[in-house]
Amino acid sequence: MIKDKTPISLSDIGEFGLINQLTKNIKLKHKTSLKGIGDDAAVIDCGDICRVITTDMLTEGIHFNLMYSPMKHLGYKSVMVNVSDVYAMNAIPKQITVSISVSSKFSIEAIEELYEGIHLACETYDVDLIGGDTVSSLTGLTISVTAIGEAKKEEIKYRSGAKLNDLICVSGNLGGAYMGLQILEREKDIYEKDNSIQPQLEGYDYILERQLKPEARKDIVEWFKAENIKVNALIDISDGLSSELIHICKESGKGCQIYPEKIPIDSATTDAAKELELEDLVTALHGGEDYELLFTVPMSEYKKVNDFEGVSIIGNITESGKAVLVTGEGEGVELVAQGWEGF
Amino acid sequence: MIKDKTPISLSDIGEFGLINQLTKNIKLKHKTSLKGIGDDAAVIDCGDICRVITTDMLTEGIHFNLMYSPMKHLGYKSVMVNVSDVYAMNAIPKQITVSISVSSKFSIEAIEELYEGIHLACETYDVDLIGGDTVSSLTGLTISVTAIGEAKKEEIKYRSGAKLNDLICVSGNLGGAYMGLQILEREKDIYEKDNSIQPQLEGYDYILERQLKPEARKDIVEWFKAENIKVNALIDISDGLSSELIHICKESGKGCQIYPEKIPIDSATTDAAKELELEDLVTALHGGEDYELLFTVPMSEYKKVNDFEGVSIIGNITESGKAVLVTGEGEGVELVAQGWEGF
Repeated sequence: MIKDKTPISLSDIGEFGLINQLTKNIKLKHKTSLKGIGDDAAVIDCGDICRVITTDMLTEGIHFNLMYSPMKHLGYKSVMVNVSDVYAMNAIPKQITVSISVSSKFSIEAIEELYEGIHLACETYDVDLIGGDTVSSLTGLTISVTAIGEAKKEEIKYRSGAKLNDLICVSGNLGGAYMGLQILEREKDIYEKDNSIQPQLEGYDYILERQLKPEARKDIVEWFKAENIKVNALIDISDGLSSELIHICKESGKGCQIYPEKIPIDSATTDAAKELELEDLVTALHGGEDYELLFTVPMSEYKKVNDFEGVSIIGNITESGKAVLVTGEGEGVELVAQGWEGF
Repeated sequence: MIKDKTPISLSDIGEFGLINQLTKNIKLKHKTSLKGIGDDAAVIDCGDICRVITTDMLTEGIHFNLMYSPMKHLGYKSVMVNVSDVYAMNAIPKQITVSISVSSKFSIEAIEELYEGIHLACETYDVDLIGGDTVSSLTGLTISVTAIGEAKKEEIKYRSGAKLNDLICVSGNLGGAYMGLQILEREKDIYEKDNSIQPQLEGYDYILERQLKPEARKDIVEWFKAENIKVNALIDISDGLSSELIHICKESGKGCQIYPEKIPIDSATTDAAKELELEDLVTALHGGEDYELLFTVPMSEYKKVNDFEGVSIIGNITESGKAVLVTGEGEGVELVAQGWEGF
């Protein structure tokens, strides 16, 4: 085998490439390890009730900027992103652990504010904080949360469950979190150039909240149960609709077609996009961080889903193997994953 | 309430102080949350078999120095510290998740070496890598591992189980990991002053291995089971014997007395301590990172424990409420926790 002598840099292969590279040869040995890497959460067989386990890490300067992320919101969001992954398995979150590494530039008060947000999220999503680690770092703040949820084995939903002709559904609306970030970044840049100019954030409440204090869709999972919705595939939208659709198609061995006019976008998102000369559809497809649920159901569930306010049917599952945005009669553009690439 | 207006800094209250401050008011709501913060691992009730969950975070420049920690050893150790916490509950580790944040200064090859060590530890300790997160950071490397283990509810051992007159036992020997670190630090300092001088590490193999590639005491937990040892309290020695003894005493509402001449110290540790003009006893009491198991058993187990090579009886549990080092006839020095304080 000829090996290139130049070391490959992380920026060459990106986040997804690195994860693929590191995890491609993993084999699970224990029969209780029902599902490993490759879905929103891993699944451990514990008898009647399975446990799902998911973990996310947030780093300062990459996932959050303390110039505009209040510590309390940051603590809340760091828990929320993990419980969202538990809901994305159709499971109920029960416990979390929280580890932080923090440099001496932070005051006790700042860390206490972070934990206020963590405790508030524990209340909101009814989870117990059962453990963690608190260590020092040379620079900055890193937060690592692990969430544990419960579900019966037959209730757990995977990315791989989509079936031909399934309706593709999404909760809430998309693109708002990304537009909120763009506004925050714009105001930060202005402030950094001239400290006397106060950030202008009035009128952007909705999209700022979508970015700084998003909520996981506990209510949708409760609706699945209450209405006995037959869900085939389920995922949460953290990296953008496009990226998550490709995950579902790839894992299910299917394709999909979605219709741009069906994709739910709030008027506040459209307004902000216009102001910044962006396409609102692009932010909805690729923006990420909306933490809505994307799921597929058989045609038989059409009425239930169509009647439920707050869920949109945006397309259907096909045999094609490709995720396609239908742009005109019979025409389509293949979607690409532009999910967040931090490196 | 009068509040001091000066923000309290992290270095004022230290790691233990901060953890106490952040976790003092936590209440567990779910009946499946059997044990939260305050032991080597949390415990979740899953029916016949409980799951124990533990998590540790390692940060560059604080927990490891890449000048002398090979990436492969670092990956191995980051898993090992977590499975050690699972053994410290008398449970068997089954799954882990691994999250890393890494800056662009690292090559793919370096990260692959880290994962080689992680995979090797998974083999050694028979655990499945079932999930994680891989993100970028602005500076350095942070590793966060969560380990999940299994045990029957009645088999789980806590820090709080020590009973009056229990024998205090420790596996292996102590202080070696700390002395290994001192040698590595000495050679690093010399090298930094003059790059032409190669580090002199010959003859220090044992203590260097204790620091760079320590092993969790899986064999001791297996021995407990095989010989049906009645263990009352159990903890692993990560922060130093003194600190862990105080944990057992505090959680059990007891005291202890230990005998300096009984504390197991390897001759390589003693030799290195002499060379660096340190007391080997002090390194054994406060050094930390040995990952040996400290446990208490009733007097009735004396013969079994005494006959087992590789376990030392170092003292006994008292009513006093204090952890005391017996220095002469009837005399004693109260132990203080000098565990690692990173801030």
